[in-house]
Amino acid sequence: MQKTDHTFHYHQPFELESGKTLPGFQLRYTTLGRLNASRSNIVWVCHALTGSSDVTSWWSTLFTEDSPFNPNDHFIICVNMPGGCYGSTGPLSINPETGKPYFHSFPALTNRDIVRAFDLLREHLGFEKVNTLIGASLGGQQLLEWAVSKPEVFGHIIAIATNAFHSPWGIAFNEAQRLAIEADPTWKENDERAGLNGMKAARAIGMLSYRHYTGFAQSQSERSTEVTEDFRAATYQRYQGEKLAKRFNAYTYWLLSKMMDSHNLGRGKESVEEALRSIRAKVLVISIDTDILFPPEEQQFLAKHIPDATLKTLSSAYGHDGFLVEFETFKKIIKEFYQPTLRNVLV
Amino acid sequence: MQKTDHTFHYHQPFELESGKTLPGFQLRYTTLGRLNASRSNIVWVCHALTGSSDVTSWWSTLFTEDSPFNPNDHFIICVNMPGGCYGSTGPLSINPETGKPYFHSFPALTNRDIVRAFDLLREHLGFEKVNTLIGASLGGQQLLEWAVSKPEVFGHIIAIATNAFHSPWGIAFNEAQRLAIEADPTWKENDERAGLNGMKAARAIGMLSYRHYTGFAQSQSERSTEVTEDFRAATYQRYQGEKLAKRFNAYTYWLLSKMMDSHNLGRGKESVEEALRSIRAKVLVISIDTDILFPPEEQQFLAKHIPDATLKTLSSAYGHDGFLVEFETFKKIIKEFYQPTLRNVLV
Repeated sequence: MQKTDHTFHYHQPFELESGKTLPGFQLRYTTLGRLNASRSNIVWVCHALTGSSDVTSWWSTLFTEDSPFNPNDHFIICVNMPGGCYGSTGPLSINPETGKPYFHSFPALTNRDIVRAFDLLREHLGFEKVNTLIGASLGGQQLLEWAVSKPEVFGHIIAIATNAFHSPWGIAFNEAQRLAIEADPTWKENDERAGLNGMKAARAIGMLSYRHYTGFAQSQSERSTEVTEDFRAATYQRYQGEKLAKRFNAYTYWLLSKMMDSHNLGRGKESVEEALRSIRAKVLVISIDTDILFPPEEQQFLAKHIPDATLKTLSSAYGHDGFLVEFETFKKIIKEFYQPTLRNVLV
Repeated sequence: MQKTDHTFHYHQPFELESGKTLPGFQLRYTTLGRLNASRSNIVWVCHALTGSSDVTSWWSTLFTEDSPFNPNDHFIICVNMPGGCYGSTGPLSINPETGKPYFHSFPALTNRDIVRAFDLLREHLGFEKVNTLIGASLGGQQLLEWAVSKPEVFGHIIAIATNAFHSPWGIAFNEAQRLAIEADPTWKENDERAGLNGMKAARAIGMLSYRHYTGFAQSQSERSTEVTEDFRAATYQRYQGEKLAKRFNAYTYWLLSKMMDSHNLGRGKESVEEALRSIRAKVLVISIDTDILFPPEEQQFLAKHIPDATLKTLSSAYGHDGFLVEFETFKKIIKEFYQPTLRNVLV
């Protein structure tokens, strides 16, 4: 499998939805496989909150030879979103206007800003059409924004565990995480390690929104009734916080949580429903039955208002994180999405 | 309605389940109404995490003239749990051995320690029998421990939104809250305001476990799609944190969350099920259908193993906090619990 990292440099001022301006940016992106002559095999992946452009590190089994997205036949591309910390311009990047890292001066970004940046790369690469756009969670929010803003570009869309606007419940989860970061007074500093202890707590909060009672019961139960402290579930939470602190920073975490909060396809439009009705792609919407952060009713709403949409709900004990776990079911559902006729013949 | 505050002083060393010892303690308790001659009208209430002995401040409408627990006919008693901050001995109390507040030196307590302290008060008051023991959440855990340790004492038990042992999921929620408190470096100090900023974030996390997606959607949705920051749901989270910081302390919050974690009726016994089978009271178990912290399956487990148990599930948009909201439904269910025959005749 051919995997290559690339960097796209954009040297002009980039005006943001907020009215502020980034003095240019760079995008790190990773590609798998080869573009075919007709450019009809492009699969564009939008990553989620703490992901990177390297899909093989977090969604590896979706891009194997037995997958509907076999890299021998497809050209897979994923871009680290602006604001991220995996090679694209973000809060730890040097601000060319000051010669110092942005840190707290990095401007707020919305999902619309993200997909406008992605679209500049798409134009730069000369991709008039994209066969398939796929993503989950925050990545799913972005792909919906992109599909609404450029309906003519996308042939197929697979939107997993995502929504048309972020819920008060989701915002409340994000705000609790930001309160935890603020409780760490180093967050006020301009330093790459600012707020890391707060971010560990934030990650533990996030874990709860990504999981479900059932999954915790299955994987973190005690083997004895005699335990009164150092419970496995507690140790697990600490471990998850420490793990993220080694690979992420609190600025990006904060920025992307605010980006998620501000997600609303209807902003500046007649309505959210009208925005969804403008999508022209053939769309597969996937729900996870135990998802408490992006619950199935949100995907039912998407499928109801997107003109050519199919809704599939998968059963998982892992809640929202099911999108990083239930690969075999995904492959099956996705295969059916591309081969409905064949399936009808064979079954 | 006659409401009186009392203090019970226990001057002997009190050995804890951990093996540590408290050099005596005091319990603040509140009573409503009057004890009748036969002492058959006692309703003992166990409060939840941030409650106090003053039931009229948090469960007022359950003790009104139109309630099954009309204070004109009943003698209602509620005790601030040891470790609390509403008049009973807790981390901010003076340690008689040092002349200074306990702060971080206050020992860990389990629900068994709590009900042993309650039981000393019960004996002191000469209450051989208690007509009804009622409580929710952490208070419900305590009343189950008490019912298991003194099965002969209680005639009726009403256990609301509670469980037989705390779940890995519940422990993970509590650990995320403790991580937020730890992210506040003032938590290391010995000062009554230690960790208060961390506790504000912890409270915001707690709110998510006490509520539900639906309730947030009903009460905290934006009226416009144009909002990109300062969302109502976020402001609400901050407000809840600030509100608790004015009336609580991080030591008690931490201590009671650890108490909840360590809850396991089966500890030192053959099994959890065996412990539940030893309960002799007539028991009403109440579930809330949207409770994500103490989900209905936990109350189904209680009702399955307690010999004389009735399970009622109420519908609410408020999740676990339904126990502080759905008073009219509670009153109805509780009335039926005491008058099943009458109900059968009338219906």
